[in-house]
Parts: sequence; structure tokens; C-alpha cells
Amino acid sequence: MTPGKSAARSAPVRTTGSALGPDHPSHRLVDSPYLRACRGERPSRVPVWFQRQAGRSLPEYRSLRREGSILDTIADPELSAEITMQPVRRYGVDAAILYSDIVVPLQAIGFGVDVVPGVGPVIDRPFETEADLDRLRPVEPDVDLAHVEATVRILVDELDVPLIGFAGAPFTLASYLVEGRPSRTYGRTKALMLDNPGLWHRLMDRLADLSVASIRSQVLAGASALQLFDSWAGALSPRDYAEFVLPHSRRIFNELSPLGVPMAHFGVGTGELLSMFAEAGATVVGIDWRIPLDEARRRTGGQVTLQGNLDPAVCLASWPTVARRVRRILQDNDGHPGHVFNLGHGVLPETDPDILRRVVELVHQEGPASNGD
Amino acid sequence: MTPGKSAARSAPVRTTGSALGPDHPSHRLVDSPYLRACRGERPSRVPVWFQRQAGRSLPEYRSLRREGSILDTIADPELSAEITMQPVRRYGVDAAILYSDIVVPLQAIGFGVDVVPGVGPVIDRPFETEADLDRLRPVEPDVDLAHVEATVRILVDELDVPLIGFAGAPFTLASYLVEGRPSRTYGRTKALMLDNPGLWHRLMDRLADLSVASIRSQVLAGASALQLFDSWAGALSPRDYAEFVLPHSRRIFNELSPLGVPMAHFGVGTGELLSMFAEAGATVVGIDWRIPLDEARRRTGGQVTLQGNLDPAVCLASWPTVARRVRRILQDNDGHPGHVFNLGHGVLPETDPDILRRVVELVHQEGPASNGD
Repeated sequence: MTPGKSAARSAPVRTTGSALGPDHPSHRLVDSPYLRACRGERPSRVPVWFQRQAGRSLPEYRSLRREGSILDTIADPELSAEITMQPVRRYGVDAAILYSDIVVPLQAIGFGVDVVPGVGPVIDRPFETEADLDRLRPVEPDVDLAHVEATVRILVDELDVPLIGFAGAPFTLASYLVEGRPSRTYGRTKALMLDNPGLWHRLMDRLADLSVASIRSQVLAGASALQLFDSWAGALSPRDYAEFVLPHSRRIFNELSPLGVPMAHFGVGTGELLSMFAEAGATVVGIDWRIPLDEARRRTGGQVTLQGNLDPAVCLASWPTVARRVRRILQDNDGHPGHVFNLGHGVLPETDPDILRRVVELVHQEGPASNGD
Repeated sequence: MTPGKSAARSAPVRTTGSALGPDHPSHRLVDSPYLRACRGERPSRVPVWFQRQAGRSLPEYRSLRREGSILDTIADPELSAEITMQPVRRYGVDAAILYSDIVVPLQAIGFGVDVVPGVGPVIDRPFETEADLDRLRPVEPDVDLAHVEATVRILVDELDVPLIGFAGAPFTLASYLVEGRPSRTYGRTKALMLDNPGLWHRLMDRLADLSVASIRSQVLAGASALQLFDSWAGALSPRDYAEFVLPHSRRIFNELSPLGVPMAHFGVGTGELLSMFAEAGATVVGIDWRIPLDEARRRTGGQVTLQGNLDPAVCLASWPTVARRVRRILQDNDGHPGHVFNLGHGVLPETDPDILRRVVELVHQEGPASNGD
């Protein structure tokens, strides 16, 4: 990366002082490997964290977790902070991600959603008509998401790595609202989108507001980076994505940009959407294992940091196999400073935590060390 | 398409006489729109059929179908032939596809599989170790699949469009055998593949034999084209596909090639695998809606016919919306003769059959007419 390019790209990210007070942890952690890599500056080691690193694969999580909905667990700041810390302690990852769920803001405004074990998000009364827009009032984070902010505040006092705040992106949230539960086909969602674009865009507007407000409150409370999860956007054709989703993602990143923290954007199966994932304004693009890092870098124009892309299913294999795959990803990346090692999707519940510990160790050992930039 | 290219490509397909007797329906139907398009020759109209056109979306199917497993229905040749005919009568599609299921050969050799309504294929004792290979004996189609051959024979007497025979591809079959049921992550399958490549390849070998024998018997009984369904291969990285799947698909097409009928190869989410889907030896590559036809043509090298690619979820929308999408696909194809209009995956059960009827009508009306080649 030429110095010119690096400077141009990191400019908006470097302005952490503008929106965030001098005590915000992002200042203290500005040279942490994760934040440096997010800005495309060479980190002291290749940073690594795992999507869904906090959760079911950890025995210490299973012993803490209450019965019933995870939304009850998330509502307890002390407990959520502890769960967020668990993988940081165990694995030595370079970032923490808030233990929460993308439906939390929907629950907070009373839309009527639960996360059913073994199923996923289930909506009492799915979104169908114009009238349902009234059920999507603006979120007031200091009131509605006070428990989330409290969790963030506990965490930033304890963590010595950056905390990533996050929200679900409008399409992925809409897919749950409209289908009423996880779907493989998104038939109702797409039918609404195509047949009633006016209502669709109004729905997406409300959900984008929710994403912005929720993420902003997490960053203001102390998160040093953010990630927008559009996990299921890969179900769309590039044209539908461009018309029905991209404008809303672009607005979200545009409104969050003044916070001056790295902004990651992730979805699975997004090979054909990657240029738009970057174009939306993200500074970090998360990819799955279906596309090699070098090809993803080509499609994103080389100006964003890439995050990924070990297949979570590979982590169910034996260590020599996993190690080979980890090394291949480092090779694919070819020493580019803008790489955050991660999985291509969330940790599978049946994963042996020791495998993940060794992945972190290997990435730290064998990823290219700093050359002083 | 230059004449030279066209001749080179259609050469193996034109030799229908070599393996198939003079009474085989493929001779009588040689200039049908579907078979011409499959060979890259300009058809009299753009041919169209729908994956899963026979089945749950049709009221006449629901009134015929027995309670319980569809495998019982498939075991009845008269009934299966009737179900295969239903969409041909109703829609006027340019090809019929045998009403069957990719697990039928597995059931036939006694592996212990059922198709559970609302779930999908479920395996009594999933494949785990070397010893399980013994449970995958070679299929003897004239004995084990006599009911399937009987269905084909009934059909070819009645049909005036080509019948497509099919089988599941080894990876997709293996994913059911190893997981024991439909999976979203293919964790166990991938772990077996990566940790025990020797056993994996022996498993794939047996499944490839099953695919070849099953498809060959359908073609010999009267099917004029074949399709290999590797529906879930898109879950693999390009490298894993190349190492663990491609050699087996290549062998299948190699062994089926002497039959001289068009050979289609389909999977969902295969954008990064398309060149290998063609390279495996298919003469027709089916694509989903995630990639536009022109880009798919570029990736497959322009030498194969493309089949697709309307999003089945679009068919849940209103007719004007569907019509717009159909026209776009015809535009994307830009008059290329090597195009078979289809969905990008199977018909969704909740689809209104009248929408599909109108899709056929529109494609036939507005697809470019023959220019005499």
C-alpha cells in the first residue's frame, strides 16, 4: 500500500476526536492491532477475533447462561459483560464483540420478538402492511437500550482490546420481521420488496434509523468499532441489492461516519455484492470462505480492510487440518496490512474451544509482523 | 457464436445414435427447442421448464399425492408418470423432469433413508466410518430402480417434449448421508472430507457410481437429457470444491458422455464455482439468481448453455413484477441461443401455478425467435 493511499483511506477513521470525548477508549487503543488493521495501517501482529466468539461453544458460557431466551441474559449487564469477556480471556483475541443480538432493538421498542432456542428469532405478529410501520417507533437508546449501554460501560473499564458494537442491517432485520422466523427462501420478504417498493423503503428507513441509533449509542458508551450485520443480503441478486438495500446501508454508514471509528459490513454469500458492500461506506468488509481474500480484495477495489475468512466448519476438523487452512488464508492475504483474521460466519456451537485458541496463537505467530509501516 | 465453435461444441451431443437405439425419443425430439438450446443451436423459441415443476405447488398434485413419504409415491410408476405430466399439460413447458428424488438410489440399495414432510431427507444411521462404505453397494438399476425405469417408459410414450433424467451429485448426497438430515453448515461433512480424505474419496466414488448408474438407466429407458444436481456444492470454497468434488463430477460426466444427450449441472450459490461446473464436462450449467446470465456466461467460458435464472421467490410477487424480471433475464441473455429459461432453484410450494403458466407464455412470446440458425 502506498503511503498516499494509506493516508487517504485512514483520514476519516483517524478523526476519532471529533465525536468522541477524550476519555473514549478508542484513543487509548488507537494503536491496537485490530484498530490499526481496520485503518489499513500495518499492525504489530495480524489481529484475530471470531464472529459469535461469545456463546454456546464455551463451557464457561453454558454454565453461566440462564434457561430460556437469550434476550433475558442480554438484559442483564453484569452477565452480558462477563459473557463478552469470556472469549477474550480464553483465546486472547484482539477484539471483543458485545454479547447481544440483532433483534434486541426490535424487542426494545416492543415489536414482539423472541429468540427461540434451536429456532432463532420468532416474531409474534409478522410485518405485513403499512399499519405495521406504526409498531416500529424510533428507539431511544438511553431509555430503551439502557441495559446495552450499561454492558458497554462495564466492558470498556475492563477490556484492554477494542470493543465492537453492532446492529443488524435493515434487510436482515426485515427478513425476520416479514417472514416471522428464519427462512431459507425469503419469499415473503422479496414479494413485499418487489410488489410494494414504497412500503419496503419506508420499512427499511425505520430499520436503518434503528441500526444507526443502536450502534451510535454503543460507540458513544465506549465501543471502538462497529459492525453492521447484513447476514442474509447474499440471498438477493445484485440488482435487487442495489435497488432495495444499498441506499439504506449507505445512509447508515454515512450517518455513523462522523463517529470516526472503523465500520465493518458483513454478510454471507456476498461474492457478487462485495463492491457494493464497500461502496456503501464500510471501511472493513467481512467475507465468507466462498471467495479467496485476493479475489475479494480485487472486487472491493483494494481500499477497504478485509475481515475473514476461515470456514467455521473447518474448525470441526483436527488441528493439522485447521492449521493448514489458517496458513492458506494468511498466504492469500499476502501480507496486506488491511486484514483482520476471522471466520467467514459465526462459531458453530459444537466447536472445540481449544481449536479456536490455537487458531489465535497461530495467526499471532505466523501472520507477518510489523515492518514499522 | 461462430459456426466453428458451434460445431465443436455440439459434436459429442450430436452422436445420439451411438449409445441409444433408433427408437430412442431423443431422435424424434432432436429439434425440440429444449434440445436445440442445450446444444447451443438456435431453437424455434426460448425453451423453458421449472426445477420442481412437478409437485407441491400444483393442486392436481396435492389431490393425487398419498399421505406419508414421497418415496412411496415415487415407487408407483403410473402415479409418478402422471405427476410428471401434470406441469407439462398445465404450463406447456418445453421439457419434463422425472418426478423422483435424489435419495431414491440410496433408498433402493437399502441405506435407510426417508423423506420426512417438512424436513427433507433423514438417514437412519448416518455415514461415519470406513465400515459404512459396505452399506453403499452398487445399484443394479434394472432390479433396484425398476420402478423408475417403468415410470420413464410410460412417460416417453406419452410426452411430446424431452424428458430429463437426473441424479444427485456425490457431494450433495454425501451431505445428507453424513449429516443425517438437511444442514445449513455441513460441519460433519466438511470435517470428514478434510480429516479423512481417503475415506471421503472412497465415499464419493461409490456415490458417483450410483449417480452414473441411475442416470444411465433413465436415459437408456428413454430420457433425452440428464441433470446432475449438486445443489449444496456452493457451500464449499473453490479450493475444496476443486480438490474434493470436481474429480468425481468430472468422472460422472465422462462416463455419461457416450450417451450423447445434453448434460446439465446445477447448484445454488455456485458463482465462484461456475468455471469448474463447466470444466467438469457439463454441456448445460444451471445458475441461480445471484449472478446475471452475462457474467455467468463469461465465467463458464461461453461454451456451455446456461439454464436459469429467475429467483423462485420472485414468483410469489404479482404478475407485473414477475413479468419485468422475466424480461430482464431475456435481456441479460441478449439473444444467445444457448439459454434454457428456468428458475434459479426449485418452485416454492406456495407459488401460484398461474404465475408459472404466464412465465412460460411470456418467454415463448418474447424470447427471440429462430433466425434459421
